[in-house]
Amino acid sequence: MKITPAKDISLNPVDVSGARDVKMRLLISPEEAPHFSMRLFEVEKDGHTPLHTHNFEHEVFIVDGQGELIVEGDNKKFSTGYVVYVPADKKHQFRNIGPNQLRFLCVVPNQY
Amino acid sequence: MKITPAKDISLNPVDVSGARDVKMRLLISPEEAPHFSMRLFEVEKDGHTPLHTHNFEHEVFIVDGQGELIVEGDNKKFSTGYVVYVPADKKHQFRNIGPNQLRFLCVVPNQY
Repeated sequence: MKITPAKDISLNPVDVSGARDVKMRLLISPEEAPHFSMRLFEVEKDGHTPLHTHNFEHEVFIVDGQGELIVEGDNKKFSTGYVVYVPADKKHQFRNIGPNQLRFLCVVPNQY
Repeated sequence: MKITPAKDISLNPVDVSGARDVKMRLLISPEEAPHFSMRLFEVEKDGHTPLHTHNFEHEVFIVDGQGELIVEGDNKKFSTGYVVYVPADKKHQFRNIGPNQLRFLCVVPNQY
């Protein structure tokens, strides 16, 4: 059992090549839950996640802010309250194109 | 690929015994994603989910509102921005105890 304000969970920089001004809180970790993990990403103005591909899906909910998803070279805008599904093996990137911080949940399977 | 405002996804009453004034949007369904499903619950003032038990876990993020989680007879308060993990086989219920609507995401495994 866990019941915690997300802001009390540690915020760590995403230090991977191609990421800019992105931090992450691991809300529910693979050690805490058997099947999937819940992460909260915080992207500063003009920041972005890496443009990358992997063999697992993303289930995303936009908590706050405005952004665009680059997926397989296409470009789609989103804002607070959007749901986003990125299937496995699609090249993708989340970019903050709003005036404020962008925050989104991203759930991934534990085994990949 | 999916990128959609959650409010455009159909809102359906949760018509199960013990639920009161709860509706759900199936944001990402088992037909759309291989491992887990994302649902958005909307609970009116004084509403609640059923007090029940099942053999799968919940990963929850409180989008908006104030509530309490009844879990195994204990009682814990939460509000906007909380993360909640309910393991499998724990008797639980989400109750809206705030003045406004309560909205929370709840992610569950597809196979159960």
